[in-house]
Amino acid sequence: MSWFPRDQWYVAAYGSEIAHDLFTRTVCGEPILFWRTRDGSVTAMPDRCVHRRFPLSQPSSRLVDDQVVCGYHGFTYDSGGKCVAVPGQTRIPRTARLLPYPVVEQDSFVWVFVGDPANADAAQIPRAPWLVDPAYTTVCGMEPLDARYGLLVDNLLDLSHETYLHGGYIGTPEVASTPIDTAVDEDAGVISVSRHMDDAECPPFYSKSTGLQGRIARWQDIEYMPPCLYTLHSRIGPVGSVPRADGTDPDAFHVEVVYAITPETETTTHDFWAVARDFALGDEEVSAFLAENNRTVVLQDVVALNVLEKVIATEPEGYQELSINIDTGGLAARRMLARLCEKS
Amino acid sequence: MSWFPRDQWYVAAYGSEIAHDLFTRTVCGEPILFWRTRDGSVTAMPDRCVHRRFPLSQPSSRLVDDQVVCGYHGFTYDSGGKCVAVPGQTRIPRTARLLPYPVVEQDSFVWVFVGDPANADAAQIPRAPWLVDPAYTTVCGMEPLDARYGLLVDNLLDLSHETYLHGGYIGTPEVASTPIDTAVDEDAGVISVSRHMDDAECPPFYSKSTGLQGRIARWQDIEYMPPCLYTLHSRIGPVGSVPRADGTDPDAFHVEVVYAITPETETTTHDFWAVARDFALGDEEVSAFLAENNRTVVLQDVVALNVLEKVIATEPEGYQELSINIDTGGLAARRMLARLCEKS
Amino acid sequence: MSWFPRDQWYVAAYGSEIAHDLFTRTVCGEPILFWRTRDGSVTAMPDRCVHRRFPLSQPSSRLVDDQVVCGYHGFTYDSGGKCVAVPGQTRIPRTARLLPYPVVEQDSFVWVFVGDPANADAAQIPRAPWLVDPAYTTVCGMEPLDARYGLLVDNLLDLSHETYLHGGYIGTPEVASTPIDTAVDEDAGVISVSRHMDDAECPPFYSKSTGLQGRIARWQDIEYMPPCLYTLHSRIGPVGSVPRADGTDPDAFHVEVVYAITPETETTTHDFWAVARDFALGDEEVSAFLAENNRTVVLQDVVALNVLEKVIATEPEGYQELSINIDTGGLAARRMLARLCEKS
Repeated sequence: MSWFPRDQWYVAAYGSEIAHDLFTRTVCGEPILFWRTRDGSVTAMPDRCVHRRFPLSQPSSRLVDDQVVCGYHGFTYDSGGKCVAVPGQTRIPRTARLLPYPVVEQDSFVWVFVGDPANADAAQIPRAPWLVDPAYTTVCGMEPLDARYGLLVDNLLDLSHETYLHGGYIGTPEVASTPIDTAVDEDAGVISVSRHMDDAECPPFYSKSTGLQGRIARWQDIEYMPPCLYTLHSRIGPVGSVPRADGTDPDAFHVEVVYAITPETETTTHDFWAVARDFALGDEEVSAFLAENNRTVVLQDVVALNVLEKVIATEPEGYQELSINIDTGGLAARRMLARLCEKS
Repeated sequence: MSWFPRDQWYVAAYGSEIAHDLFTRTVCGEPILFWRTRDGSVTAMPDRCVHRRFPLSQPSSRLVDDQVVCGYHGFTYDSGGKCVAVPGQTRIPRTARLLPYPVVEQDSFVWVFVGDPANADAAQIPRAPWLVDPAYTTVCGMEPLDARYGLLVDNLLDLSHETYLHGGYIGTPEVASTPIDTAVDEDAGVISVSRHMDDAECPPFYSKSTGLQGRIARWQDIEYMPPCLYTLHSRIGPVGSVPRADGTDPDAFHVEVVYAITPETETTTHDFWAVARDFALGDEEVSAFLAENNRTVVLQDVVALNVLEKVIATEPEGYQELSINIDTGGLAARRMLARLCEKS
Repeated sequence: MSWFPRDQWYVAAYGSEIAHDLFTRTVCGEPILFWRTRDGSVTAMPDRCVHRRFPLSQPSSRLVDDQVVCGYHGFTYDSGGKCVAVPGQTRIPRTARLLPYPVVEQDSFVWVFVGDPANADAAQIPRAPWLVDPAYTTVCGMEPLDARYGLLVDNLLDLSHETYLHGGYIGTPEVASTPIDTAVDEDAGVISVSRHMDDAECPPFYSKSTGLQGRIARWQDIEYMPPCLYTLHSRIGPVGSVPRADGTDPDAFHVEVVYAITPETETTTHDFWAVARDFALGDEEVSAFLAENNRTVVLQDVVALNVLEKVIATEPEGYQELSINIDTGGLAARRMLARLCEKS
């Protein structure tokens, strides 16, 4: 049993973070080296020289064309992780190679597969198409979290906390008071949590970005695809508005809030967040407003979850939480994650 | 066996620290939430929401009248720890409650009982009446100590260290050179250590506050009531002066030095100190002098004990100290504390 | 089995660091107190009072003539570690003494023997005579390293890293590309690694200090005497120059680079370095240049090794390195150190 699900795809970075330059990020406890090759693809290999474990991302390591030269003794690797030069001898040991990680760039993310590469199937990577859809405008970021990834999963699966932790930003009384519907699709590996508020106060996050006045219909439809991808389909419209029978929904505003929840270590997490909207396309003022506000909201979560991690670190063993209806989605997520960890 | 005595009263705060506001302090490893209710009494309950363990003292948690609302999901508790509201449902789970700590406000301190509340007997709280007696003027403070509470007990039971660590403040050669008398009352749970110096140098701490010139009679009579309360009855008078047969002692100055030694964690301690005098009553200059000087002396101890805690952390297992006559009181205190821990 | 070789001599300090003043340094996990006595010899005893473990180097501890008085309760020790005074009584317990460490001042270093003093044989201390030889001018220093001592041994036994980590200072392409000769003398406890570059680029470190122009003969002859002393006999001369049959070598410049590798704790090390040259004797400009440049080079190693220590702390158990020809000396050193640890 592993502390994280193995044989799974995780978001390691935004594609925009990786240029023709050495880049490192730790995913599931494994430091990974990335660079974008001359042909535009992204490499992924252990960030640790096979010789004396020096990080290949650490100066004086450097990228020379599409080879990385270790800054300690000069072991040199190509973009596939194969060692092509060692100091003091011409023979290169057969075992001198870094096993590459399967890597896929999709929906603005760089996904890596942590586990046995033979089990990697790119078709199983969950999708977040809005982030690269020209019909949407997206703002995004990543905040480091000093808390285990499970605390972020808990947080995102139960949005009733918006009312308390994010009051004045995205929380209103109706979020906490409206019951949820939860559905678990074990085969597809999807947990769905829905909360439809038909007559709710409009929080500043949406009133200022959409221009809507007065009370609203506000729908929150969550889909979590453990372990990494979380999407919140947020629908905001005038009270009484509903999508049409043909699936179109011209009276409402739609925001796709996407999180990628990537364990860094057992007690730290990469908290990737993106907000894609189907209105005010390309409007930089709205983009700046949403980027700043969503980052503020994410940082409110970060502060709270970092506190919880410290509480866990000092509490007596066997401490038991109390759960209620709002936790149905979060508890389902914990069970699914626990099963994935057991198989690992 | 516990690392601290359970089923005991501990000083958590001065009453003056707690207003109608959320206040938290960790006692014996347990984070405790306090506030002063509208009716003036002090509450004490675990500082951890039963739902997802969010600290109730942590913003955006807040006090609304005499209820505390959790800043994460809005669980709401009354001053007795009973949960009175949860989000998304009207039914409140029967087990949703925080078990209050027995709490008593006495002699300027807020005492809490750590252990099984059924065993709490307020009559067993040791007294320090001088701190609220109009016949005395008191200065006080609290310093955080990064050392286990036992090191502070050792320190206070053996005042020979005044000569070395507090030279120029309260130490003179006679303190270290004068033998002590020790008495242990197992039934009452009191350890007494006395040192009567009949012809001693007067340290600045007493010469400046009393105005005494030349050599003095200086008596130190310690009573330690494990685990928490320590009192030093300090008598300073002209050489040759003694109390009268009727118990009055008009020729001497009396200072009651009170410490409350409260474990915060296994290796940190709340070091409460108070100095009550029966002379220069209300004299603010004397109060300021004694407050500043006693705090300096306490901080000299803090520096030394923090160093000892680091020494212990790195020393080999089974390291043995060497004890001599001056340690009789400290060793008796260790034995009494060890018995209290064994029962816990 | 110990994490470091016991019953061995270690460099604790330069003699110049120790005056008639309390000085402390931790060697192999043991805090040691030093001072230079009135007669000029160096003491060495545990830096921990037998009474309540207060460090004797910590204020308000102080040196009075050739006795150290503990700053906590006044226990007083002579330069041989014998307790000569305790507070509150005239009888001094028989066991109140600090066991002195065997100590020898030699070749500018203060050596201490860590282990059973009965096994200490000063004749076994390895020599670095150049550091006090008037035919040489020496610059030296010590850098604290947040890495285990074995990483520094690895580093110094394989100088091919000069090409990469110290390029522009002492590294040139020839260092990494020239093969080495390794010899292990088990009886004498010496590992030798030689690299003779007969036609090499002259790095700034040597061109600026010697004035040599163009390409050079550059010889590196390492002798490592585990656990502590490492010497690099560096010979720089015109291409084609060789020592004469009588052992003299007037055409070349000689630099004796000496390291003392002293474990402080399991994961920290005292990195003593000295550079002795047989040219530009007494030339302060050359001394300043070599001191600054060698310190820069040492700090480049410190940064790299501190990174490696962090890598080791987080890597999975059982991680295997890959070794090649250049590692022959380092692997021999590891084997010899492992045997010394097993005996400990």
